[in-house]
Amino acid sequence: MSVEETIRNIAKSAKKSARSVAALSTLKKNEALERLADKLVDRADVIKAENEKDLELAKKKGLSDAMIDRLAVTDGVIEGMATGLRDVIRLPDPVGQVTGMWLRPNGLQVGRVRIPLGVIAMIYEARPNATIDAAGLCLKAGNAVILRGGSEAFHSNSILGQIIQEALRETNIPESAVHVVPVRGRAAVEALLSQDDFIDLIIPRGGESLIRFVANNSTIPVLKHYKGVCHVYVDEDADLKMANEISWNAKVQRPGVCNAMETLLVHEAVAEDFLPPMARRFIDAGVELRGCPRTCNIVRGIKDATEEDWAKEYLDLILSIKVVSSLDEAIAHIARYGSAHTEAIVTSDYCRARRFLRDVDASVVLVNASTRFNDGGELGLGAEIGISTSKLHAYGPMGLEELTTTKFVVFGDGQIRT
Amino acid sequence: MSVEETIRNIAKSAKKSARSVAALSTLKKNEALERLADKLVDRADVIKAENEKDLELAKKKGLSDAMIDRLAVTDGVIEGMATGLRDVIRLPDPVGQVTGMWLRPNGLQVGRVRIPLGVIAMIYEARPNATIDAAGLCLKAGNAVILRGGSEAFHSNSILGQIIQEALRETNIPESAVHVVPVRGRAAVEALLSQDDFIDLIIPRGGESLIRFVANNSTIPVLKHYKGVCHVYVDEDADLKMANEISWNAKVQRPGVCNAMETLLVHEAVAEDFLPPMARRFIDAGVELRGCPRTCNIVRGIKDATEEDWAKEYLDLILSIKVVSSLDEAIAHIARYGSAHTEAIVTSDYCRARRFLRDVDASVVLVNASTRFNDGGELGLGAEIGISTSKLHAYGPMGLEELTTTKFVVFGDGQIRT
Repeated sequence: MSVEETIRNIAKSAKKSARSVAALSTLKKNEALERLADKLVDRADVIKAENEKDLELAKKKGLSDAMIDRLAVTDGVIEGMATGLRDVIRLPDPVGQVTGMWLRPNGLQVGRVRIPLGVIAMIYEARPNATIDAAGLCLKAGNAVILRGGSEAFHSNSILGQIIQEALRETNIPESAVHVVPVRGRAAVEALLSQDDFIDLIIPRGGESLIRFVANNSTIPVLKHYKGVCHVYVDEDADLKMANEISWNAKVQRPGVCNAMETLLVHEAVAEDFLPPMARRFIDAGVELRGCPRTCNIVRGIKDATEEDWAKEYLDLILSIKVVSSLDEAIAHIARYGSAHTEAIVTSDYCRARRFLRDVDASVVLVNASTRFNDGGELGLGAEIGISTSKLHAYGPMGLEELTTTKFVVFGDGQIRT
Repeated sequence: MSVEETIRNIAKSAKKSARSVAALSTLKKNEALERLADKLVDRADVIKAENEKDLELAKKKGLSDAMIDRLAVTDGVIEGMATGLRDVIRLPDPVGQVTGMWLRPNGLQVGRVRIPLGVIAMIYEARPNATIDAAGLCLKAGNAVILRGGSEAFHSNSILGQIIQEALRETNIPESAVHVVPVRGRAAVEALLSQDDFIDLIIPRGGESLIRFVANNSTIPVLKHYKGVCHVYVDEDADLKMANEISWNAKVQRPGVCNAMETLLVHEAVAEDFLPPMARRFIDAGVELRGCPRTCNIVRGIKDATEEDWAKEYLDLILSIKVVSSLDEAIAHIARYGSAHTEAIVTSDYCRARRFLRDVDASVVLVNASTRFNDGGELGLGAEIGISTSKLHAYGPMGLEELTTTKFVVFGDGQIRT
């Protein structure tokens, strides 16, 4: 069977099972997730053995230590997967929630009810725990799911897929509710992207090139974010100690993630007070600074920031800094170079806080808090399957609700339209 | 300038104005809509003169009377546009609505706030009043909009576009908030579909071929419905008089629209009582009936329905009829042949009503009411810009809320992530 046929069959069977998955009770879904959590722990040895194959290949291929680290499935990682599933079990089931109901003048009662999206395909790289996280969230939201992990995690994902299907079978849920695509290579991804008869949503997670490839080649709606070029703007009325802590946290706590700060904007009125100690702290921690001319006048000996720097997602201990003359200039800079991901202002001024919140177009806009809070768990969604910087359907972290849609239900007593 | 450049410039200027349109107060937006409503009535003679050019060309081209009728802009049509705008003025402004707000354990206050989508492009056919309706709704929801009507309405749309821009100018709103594309031909449509840097959403309205063309060629998210193959299912416990009235209304009141019934499903237990008088009423009204073998046994002398009939959107006084043995068979038939648009059951049975509501996947599912109620106005959304049968972002009629998204806003006091 060709790759295209294999993928088409998978998509078709997922679509077929989607109807019965959509009708599963919360109890039933939770039972399957619980079974899966138990199984992962029980079968830890098998999982680690399969993971070992991936690790060996990765070392042979000369993947970076960071990549190999992300690929490794330890007992701790397995415990983490099981804990994650139990967290999802405790989250409220979005399916069937009535998001509104009203009465029309003719007596029709009209409501909107949350329903699953149908079939979700996720295309992702590296970490095998994404396989379990995604399966748990999609299933809890009543969706069938097709998981296509990176080829470097092929063996790990395959065994996880088998264990998922066992848990489904043992709890009388169609196995085809969760597919782990058993094919390597980009042809399988391409084939997935054209199954618009069967797949309702594609979620790519990974590097910008993967995401662009998916967005450009998919005939199915895609929820994506390309990159996070996140800013912290230190206003003229900022509490400078708070600004220092927030900027530090936003840059240094975990520099390799999408909600880390990449550019620091500082109002000219506080730049001379704020920047020297802030720069010292960053430099001491090994952060490379790149400044605009005004920044370089205040903080001597750092690199000049180029035009490319302002648009760059470093994902590393590098930070560009710009001194601005006004809130307007900060907002304009963010509009031009930002990626609609996460933007923060530090200020004690009521009006400027309100203006920043209103006029900055980003999935999460914060006042006096670190950009690092753009995360489904941190914002109270319970868990997330990714962050969308597209505005359609979901903007920001996507939790269980974002894996559903609403349909209209109408209760009548024989009403006809006149 | 090439068509591509013209379109790119339009899209770019719409994007530029989108930021200021998003920040307009409700008062300001309503003032512009009011001004536009007044202007349409004041300039009725000019509009009708331009429309006359379109009508003459349409007659020369030999368009059908129905098409010409849809194209004609009479005083009544102009009054209708003005009334429509005044209705939109009275609708609540979705922008800035807080859809939820909660406190996190660390004291962060997290909320979701409605914001405009940005730039919406609508590609539509025939009726020039769509130009005004779409401009009004998009603007009220804080979006910039690019309107690309059918070439047969070129002169009418151009003059309406001019009047819209006058109303904007006179109320100090950037003219580029609403563009009527001044270019005929499909190249302009194609160029629009690739402006993903500037356009956030494409809404095609028209025939299935237009919509497929848009969906297949757009790199921008598309909200669409291809067709409405809507069913009424008359259950064994239906009130047969009610079932007759609902079926009649769903088929005959306005057969040429997407929420009209195309297939009638009847439970075998009531088929012999229900079908003969129902069929007689339809035949007397000139409805052509096409039945399954069991239907043809009960109603003599009608055509046999073929496999193609079950999937057909007639948009005409034609109806296919099938006798089914159970609710399950009805639901399975709808799942196979329906278009996720509008589905109704007529029943007095509580459990079957609940099952139909839950298990039928359609944007609007009704109990004991006509399919004709799938309409933004009828369901209480105030107005609609179209009906989506895609599940992403919006499913069903799209009102003002569906022309917005939400962003997260976070109020902190210096919180950092640990």
